Amino acid sequence: PVGIVAQAVASEKTIEDETYVDEVPWSLLQEGCRGDGSSMREKFEKMIRAAQDDITAAITEADGKEFHQDAWTRPGGGGGISRVLQDGNVWEKAGVNVSVVYGSMPPEAYRAATGSTKPIDADAGRVPFFAAGISSVMHPKNPMAPTMHFNYRYFETDEWNGLPKAWWFGGGTDLTPSYVIDEDAKHFHGTYKAVCDEHDPEYYAKFKKWADEYFIIGHRGETRGIGGIFFDDQNDRDPDTIFKFSTACAAAVVPSYVPLVVKHKDDPFTEEQKEWQQMRRGRYVEFNLVYDRGTTFGLKTGGRIESILMSLPLTARWQYDFEPEEGTPERYALECFRKNPEWCA
Amino acid sequence: PVGIVAQAVASEKTIEDETYVDEVPWSLLQEGCRGDGSSMREKFEKMIRAAQDDITAAITEADGKEFHQDAWTRPGGGGGISRVLQDGNVWEKAGVNVSVVYGSMPPEAYRAATGSTKPIDADAGRVPFFAAGISSVMHPKNPMAPTMHFNYRYFETDEWNGLPKAWWFGGGTDLTPSYVIDEDAKHFHGTYKAVCDEHDPEYYAKFKKWADEYFIIGHRGETRGIGGIFFDDQNDRDPDTIFKFSTACAAAVVPSYVPLVVKHKDDPFTEEQKEWQQMRRGRYVEFNLVYDRGTTFGLKTGGRIESILMSLPLTARWQYDFEPEEGTPERYALECFRKNPEWCA
Repeated sequence: PVGIVAQAVASEKTIEDETYVDEVPWSLLQEGCRGDGSSMREKFEKMIRAAQDDITAAITEADGKEFHQDAWTRPGGGGGISRVLQDGNVWEKAGVNVSVVYGSMPPEAYRAATGSTKPIDADAGRVPFFAAGISSVMHPKNPMAPTMHFNYRYFETDEWNGLPKAWWFGGGTDLTPSYVIDEDAKHFHGTYKAVCDEHDPEYYAKFKKWADEYFIIGHRGETRGIGGIFFDDQNDRDPDTIFKFSTACAAAVVPSYVPLVVKHKDDPFTEEQKEWQQMRRGRYVEFNLVYDRGTTFGLKTGGRIESILMSLPLTARWQYDFEPEEGTPERYALECFRKNPEWCA
Repeated sequence: PVGIVAQAVASEKTIEDETYVDEVPWSLLQEGCRGDGSSMREKFEKMIRAAQDDITAAITEADGKEFHQDAWTRPGGGGGISRVLQDGNVWEKAGVNVSVVYGSMPPEAYRAATGSTKPIDADAGRVPFFAAGISSVMHPKNPMAPTMHFNYRYFETDEWNGLPKAWWFGGGTDLTPSYVIDEDAKHFHGTYKAVCDEHDPEYYAKFKKWADEYFIIGHRGETRGIGGIFFDDQNDRDPDTIFKFSTACAAAVVPSYVPLVVKHKDDPFTEEQKEWQQMRRGRYVEFNLVYDRGTTFGLKTGGRIESILMSLPLTARWQYDFEPEEGTPERYALECFRKNPEWCA
């Protein structure tokens, strides 16, 4: 029976094994992609690596503990940098990953992303792509301090089999409190609304709705948290304009989120409040393993598992049939997750 | 935005809402299905309800705490009985569910189960079915005592759209220890091998392999535990013969499992051992939410969520990049999950 497990895994794996490195190369791009720094691949990698530095520095300043770093490259190009802070003073687990991937996707994924309706030969195989992204989840210890997730990414496909080169941007930042504090929800949404408004007056409403529809735990009839913004497949204006918007969104992570954790990190709490947080962490696990596209895609394609599942909380709880009592803060939170109110009306 | 969440859920829901009942009816079958007790639907319901009584009684005897019961019926027929023991003296969470479902499945599911290759009109809709089953997961508190899962079920489709009536049995019992103790593994597998051998000398090898191939956490390259037996789509001999085998398998749950928990329930353990157990519980969650067909099917079709997710442990842990040291019992367990040894060679 040796081999059953390995076979099952290998049959689905499409990403090469990683080679760990102590020194991260100045660029994770293939040598042929490294030019004078003016290509979007180069600019995007530079932006996400700087964002990783800035955000982990801000978290370490608030927590007092350093991140642990793992970095790797892949034989065919690309690689990643995972930074994880575990069992800190303020955060139970906080991770910020950067990754550069040279891979291939099924033609349907290309079509979904580009809106292309051009017929594709059924035997044509997979579309080669380049992807670079930063992604992060942070789970604080104190039940009054919220969890935050963000992810900003850039995709490019090669010219392939008669299909033109395509590119698009995606991303978003969203907040998942265990206890919903209106003032905090307004601060978080307000920060992103201001960023959106600077770039397009329609962005906030559009991207907030996109988050509302994405971060749903279908089988519970609940949202994961109080949402934020989410966008994908963006290529409706020139790339530099969308790049600037992505850069501004990544730069808003610290001011939208860190003050909320600093404000609540020393709040007193009871054992029951900690248990409620743990149950909401269980819901977070349910969303990520059942619905989250990045996670389910990553698990199937053989990316680095510890980086993909870095998003899961350190601990979680499933208590049979728990329903908070009327009039409690737990009930208020649950009602927010069921009704999904507006925070910047 | 009120309604976004409800809409997302309703669009996938195919099972009716449950009506809770204090007194469980003597049969959960539709009235038209209740005859003189000789139909397989009646015999199977009777068997699983008796098994639920026997198994919960044995667990309560070992634990000292009673199960909480929730029971419901559905307007169109069918219903369920969930029994959960939470925060017991020995078990952290133990659930045993019985359910009877009148539903419909896509024609591909019918084909997969029956091996039918008869062409089906694309517009023919869904195939009506009857299903009755018992399912259970039990997670003990002590890290030296194993988790156990079992599930025995009977399916029947109605004659439909030119397709003949079909029926099949499925089921299995498997063990998930955090620490692999060879003697216990041999007891568990040996008990099921003896049950199999009484019914067909080829059953154990065949159904053990089926379990080995099913209980794999693909993205980890690990099995969930040390397996057991698993079978599905069984209709290759007369129904009463397979029914007797299913009945014997359900009756073997207590002797194969309970003595192992009784043996280890008071074993001393360290905080590190409890953490290892919690990390293996995290793997259990990964398997159930990502791969388990019963769970993923249940979440999508709108079954009773608290009964479906009763299988999740009370608490679980995800620690970044934990790898047990060479020569430790944790490493031995992990090697068993990676290599999948034989226990009845």
